[in-house]
Amino acid sequence: MAATSIGTARRRRDGEPKVRGTTRFTGDLQIHGLLHGRLVLAGDAHARLNGVDAAAALALPGVVAVLTAADLPLRPGAGGRAGLPLARDEILWSGQPVALVVGESEAAAEDGAGLVVVDAEPLPAVLDLEAAIEAGSPPARVHAAPAVDGGAAGAHGAPDDEATADAHGAAGAGGSEQAPSSPNVVTQRRMTGGDAAAGLAAAAVVVSGRFRTPWVHQGYLEPQVAVAWTEPDGELVVHASTQGAFALRQSLSSLLGLPLDKIRVRPGVIGGAFGGKLALLEPLVAAAAVKLRRPLRLALARSEDFAATNPAPAQLIELELGATAEGRLTALRGRVVADRGAVADMGVEAISTALCAGPYAWPAHDLKAVGVLTNRVGAGAYRAPGAPPAAFALETLLDELAQRLGLDPIELRLRNVLTAGDRGIDGQEVAVLGARECLEALREHPLWSGRGALPAGEGVGVALGFWPGGLEPAAAICRLDADGRLTIVTAAADMSGVENAFATIAAETFGLAEDDVRVATGDTSSAPYGGVSGGSKVTYTYGRAVERAAAEARERLLRIASAELEIAPEDLEVADGEVRPLGAPGRAIKLADLAARTLSFGSPHEPIEGYGGVAQVSRAPGAAAHLSHVRVDVETGAVTPVAHVIAQDVGRALNPALVDGQLMGGSAQGLGWALLEELAYDEDGQLRSGSFAEYALPSFDVVPPIETLLVEVPAPDGPFGAKGVGEPPVVAAPPAVANAVAAAVGVRLRTLPMTPSRVWAALEDAR
Amino acid sequence: MAATSIGTARRRRDGEPKVRGTTRFTGDLQIHGLLHGRLVLAGDAHARLNGVDAAAALALPGVVAVLTAADLPLRPGAGGRAGLPLARDEILWSGQPVALVVGESEAAAEDGAGLVVVDAEPLPAVLDLEAAIEAGSPPARVHAAPAVDGGAAGAHGAPDDEATADAHGAAGAGGSEQAPSSPNVVTQRRMTGGDAAAGLAAAAVVVSGRFRTPWVHQGYLEPQVAVAWTEPDGELVVHASTQGAFALRQSLSSLLGLPLDKIRVRPGVIGGAFGGKLALLEPLVAAAAVKLRRPLRLALARSEDFAATNPAPAQLIELELGATAEGRLTALRGRVVADRGAVADMGVEAISTALCAGPYAWPAHDLKAVGVLTNRVGAGAYRAPGAPPAAFALETLLDELAQRLGLDPIELRLRNVLTAGDRGIDGQEVAVLGARECLEALREHPLWSGRGALPAGEGVGVALGFWPGGLEPAAAICRLDADGRLTIVTAAADMSGVENAFATIAAETFGLAEDDVRVATGDTSSAPYGGVSGGSKVTYTYGRAVERAAAEARERLLRIASAELEIAPEDLEVADGEVRPLGAPGRAIKLADLAARTLSFGSPHEPIEGYGGVAQVSRAPGAAAHLSHVRVDVETGAVTPVAHVIAQDVGRALNPALVDGQLMGGSAQGLGWALLEELAYDEDGQLRSGSFAEYALPSFDVVPPIETLLVEVPAPDGPFGAKGVGEPPVVAAPPAVANAVAAAVGVRLRTLPMTPSRVWAALEDAR
Repeated sequence: MAATSIGTARRRRDGEPKVRGTTRFTGDLQIHGLLHGRLVLAGDAHARLNGVDAAAALALPGVVAVLTAADLPLRPGAGGRAGLPLARDEILWSGQPVALVVGESEAAAEDGAGLVVVDAEPLPAVLDLEAAIEAGSPPARVHAAPAVDGGAAGAHGAPDDEATADAHGAAGAGGSEQAPSSPNVVTQRRMTGGDAAAGLAAAAVVVSGRFRTPWVHQGYLEPQVAVAWTEPDGELVVHASTQGAFALRQSLSSLLGLPLDKIRVRPGVIGGAFGGKLALLEPLVAAAAVKLRRPLRLALARSEDFAATNPAPAQLIELELGATAEGRLTALRGRVVADRGAVADMGVEAISTALCAGPYAWPAHDLKAVGVLTNRVGAGAYRAPGAPPAAFALETLLDELAQRLGLDPIELRLRNVLTAGDRGIDGQEVAVLGARECLEALREHPLWSGRGALPAGEGVGVALGFWPGGLEPAAAICRLDADGRLTIVTAAADMSGVENAFATIAAETFGLAEDDVRVATGDTSSAPYGGVSGGSKVTYTYGRAVERAAAEARERLLRIASAELEIAPEDLEVADGEVRPLGAPGRAIKLADLAARTLSFGSPHEPIEGYGGVAQVSRAPGAAAHLSHVRVDVETGAVTPVAHVIAQDVGRALNPALVDGQLMGGSAQGLGWALLEELAYDEDGQLRSGSFAEYALPSFDVVPPIETLLVEVPAPDGPFGAKGVGEPPVVAAPPAVANAVAAAVGVRLRTLPMTPSRVWAALEDAR
Repeated sequence: MAATSIGTARRRRDGEPKVRGTTRFTGDLQIHGLLHGRLVLAGDAHARLNGVDAAAALALPGVVAVLTAADLPLRPGAGGRAGLPLARDEILWSGQPVALVVGESEAAAEDGAGLVVVDAEPLPAVLDLEAAIEAGSPPARVHAAPAVDGGAAGAHGAPDDEATADAHGAAGAGGSEQAPSSPNVVTQRRMTGGDAAAGLAAAAVVVSGRFRTPWVHQGYLEPQVAVAWTEPDGELVVHASTQGAFALRQSLSSLLGLPLDKIRVRPGVIGGAFGGKLALLEPLVAAAAVKLRRPLRLALARSEDFAATNPAPAQLIELELGATAEGRLTALRGRVVADRGAVADMGVEAISTALCAGPYAWPAHDLKAVGVLTNRVGAGAYRAPGAPPAAFALETLLDELAQRLGLDPIELRLRNVLTAGDRGIDGQEVAVLGARECLEALREHPLWSGRGALPAGEGVGVALGFWPGGLEPAAAICRLDADGRLTIVTAAADMSGVENAFATIAAETFGLAEDDVRVATGDTSSAPYGGVSGGSKVTYTYGRAVERAAAEARERLLRIASAELEIAPEDLEVADGEVRPLGAPGRAIKLADLAARTLSFGSPHEPIEGYGGVAQVSRAPGAAAHLSHVRVDVETGAVTPVAHVIAQDVGRALNPALVDGQLMGGSAQGLGWALLEELAYDEDGQLRSGSFAEYALPSFDVVPPIETLLVEVPAPDGPFGAKGVGEPPVVAAPPAVANAVAAAVGVRLRTLPMTPSRVWAALEDAR
């Protein structure tokens, strides 16, 4: 065999073109006759929509149309957010799209949008999550009850909480519970096992807390954008920055009533998504393009993206847990309330509730998940949906528990962490999990062992995060071209350097250099099927399909080489771009020669190609443990991260450079959750942080050096042992910081982000 | 099983959109910033090119550039026609592109082209095929000797005569012969077997003749067109009306020096090709788009297409053959001279020579193939390249032989026709061939048996044609979509209703209704490999790949249905859009349900997809016999076809309606060869028939009712026994007409087309 590609650090393939600016994003597409859309966003947080006066806008030169909900050719009854791209009868949040102004130019559309008058009659707005669940709360929606189960199912592919949990990899457990306490409580679910009350009663120590986390935006660099047009034969083409081409096609088919084969979704290059780019703008843009019979682009401005898309929702988590004096956990009890915003078809409460158990063994649990409507933007998925809030609550309490028990926090976790053969609260047996190994890796780290010698106001915190990993079928084809290079084709969205992962897997499997593998993305017309890029499952599912496709092509290659060389396939090896007879390298044939001979008139050989389809049935959960070293300014409450270490079980690091990048990016986003990020609204429900000036993403002056420790506990069904690595690293960064703050200055924060004012207030309380 | 799709007549899928005008052809593509090209064509037939004065053109508003050969970024040494898209140093034919004027609009380019001044110094022009091969002929090319073998090989994929023959299905035989008799003879090849001289000497009867056929244009409705642009990342995209996407990509890679994966060929819908659309305009358009960094379209006007493309070349065939008194053929001797025009990389002389033997057994043969340069447009492929002239010579002489021997012409052919197990003059054993069955079908036809009772001036002629069938690897993938419909993906060009054939094959193999199969064409970036659509091999090769892909998908389907139903796969059947347990139809699952369940989050099933790759190693030659009934006006020489019957071995008629269409279309084109079509040039080499006003395609007032007899001798390796049917029907129509003329009025024509003046002259000679 040639030198292995696996485990070799290589640059991201999409890096150079993105840095050079030669990548063509969806918004860069140049289309003949393209129209431009601009949204008219609602001002009120909740109002009766009496009408839209478009006369002045339509009078502007260059304005082609002003579309409202009634103008869109959507199937009646199409539910959920996708079925309601523009407000109908009722305005549900400040920032909701009410009309789409279409112009011959961006400027015309923009000017037109400024002239549209929305006639709305204010209604009581439901803005506070805790007030929303009170029995006496006014309803956040008056006209139409949201269809949480059923109607919207086909549209998003992930309509209700159960499906959403599945999409991102969690297995829901337990039954539903009816009797909502307020008109805004749209889902309630209870998950129980054992006798939690007895477990808590029998515990030597019980700790509890009430945790709040805010609305957080995914912060992708490329705002939401979509382009759509119809071909003369009626085919609808949608070029979109989407995480799921086939899922989007399905959604559009349901919404527009078009057969699947009359819709072609071309997955564009994605400028960041993190869960937020799943059929959001496309229904509107597609419907408008069908209506107007012209190509249309809608590209949100940054402020619109903050106000009108689908960020991670606010959560309220109440949790109590107990342990024996030896530090054995006895029971977990609590409630997870998640805001669904005004559009109810996406919620994180179920998965977040399940994740409150962490990767630990619980003799008993009693957890309740509550999904709540408010007059806020609809909730969406963001890297490990629901996991950071759950980990913030659980891991903070575990830290407190260790403190109360006088146990080393890592030791407490090691005594309870799930390992292979254990069962989680969902009752499923854990196949392989490297959580223990991650904790052990941190225990040996000098930052942990040396934490006692830090100056005053500094501290080190530890926390463990967990992500169950998603499953969805995927397929790939591969083709040896006449130049001896291999082409891999999938429908996987361009995200997180998947091109590299596929190339590494194919190169290793087929037996050529990674640079001789090209990775192509097909559209829904011609690519093999593949699921949504989300839930940390692309490498685990698509990657496995790529491995199979390359293996099948290699078999064909050896069969053909065997015929040409008259040597049995088992006596041949593929290396360095050649097929070589073992022991007779002088008779080697170059792949390019073999391929060119095969792909020609009269060739007696079939193409050297392969197909791989896969349905993983075993999950490959990921775990990541963090050490956070912070310095707290007791005068101002400012928390400064000094150092950060993450140990993550990555299964097998196909390309350590890219895996490191995921771990660093996830940790950085976790620091954003911990210290900075919050979509802040005023008392009228108006967004106050609608730009990166007000919405504080962690930048390089905030993020400390991040040290990554790659723990490799191979996933049996992953390609070369690899598993998804995208979501785990964000999960436990916030509690690691919170625990570091506690270690530094002795106060425990219950609300994210841990802003200077909150820390200062906590210090004041403690003083 | 459901009712079979095989053998059921169905409409062409591409028919309705083409009739309605909703098909988007390459020339209809709307591209942002598109530039338009217009060619400056040479006036002289042969000249030294001293320069091009573009100043006046460049001064015109809207003219962007005037490109000449030196401006194109083609690799030095790139040979053949593809390497010489614009004249360099020397003008080789009247009509040769000398410059490309590029404008912001068609009108600007057109106006600019009118202002370009070509400075050329006339050279002696070689215009007559017979004079061109004389030792004293001036050379048709002065500056550069054409590279017949070698240099151009990579570019066209079919550079020399051997490869060309292969491309269209013939196996060359015999060795090359050097020592050209004139500077214009660029290839000579002799094919021998047995002792032809002895065979002729021993024959009871010998007949001979000298036959001439003209340059004939393919007459496609859509003139040549190509569009190209470069993406910001440097990828060259070529959208072309081409018969071979992968072959074109290979050619462009060689010419432009770009890696294969930096070129994406998007095969567009083809508005007729018949062999003429193989990398002709694309090298120029691609090179210009790379040079100008702007999207560019070049769409030829009809007159340009007549003057500057690649029609079938003129031929001169001298043949003599002998037979015993019992009508056993003894020997065949002769020479086939084919014009290659001014660009030498495509010639039909080798295959035409091989086809002069027809589908008959010859104890001895001695044939010479000669390829000749002249100052005419370069030769190209046209439906069964070289076959109609060969059949015209051979089948006319056989008719004469039968007359001399007093044998029924069909009986004479039956005594000598090849059947399974016989060997052709190439020495290959014939596997399966339905030529005999075709003759037998005609022998029973009332038109044949009743031919003795026709009025004066009318006659019926018979002739048999043959096409060896091409081979080239091909592949397909298929995918069951969530709506229960099957998608087939190949790189096969849209020609001749292949969508129907693929759908029929897939439907029958998989087990669903043909309407539930969609056929998609992929581009070279993501489609599995496939060869050129030519040589009557698409159904035979791609079709077989489709069958395999559908079979593999069906296996997956049954495996998944088996798991869902807990019934063994062998106890399941697929029919009417369902998987049904045998004997328990009530437990059937709809394909759509199964597919939707499979293609979803958490599905335990891999996608229901399949891959099929194929390399046919056995040829499936086709044969077609014609009866032509004509009326000859002895006063004017006008020949009027009265009726026409074609009996063709089609292997298995997957869709009789489409097969009938091929037989009728081929017969009609054969009538054009016989009676009407000729690219006529004046004594200066100027084309006189540059429009459909002068170039007479057979129209409906000329073509008589054509009766088709589908003879089904299954091809063992064809999908469901099918074989290629495109080329055989054109081959023997001309000699059938010629033999009918002889039967009607007793004169034998040796030159095509058999115009009234030629027939009248022959009648005069005979009177």
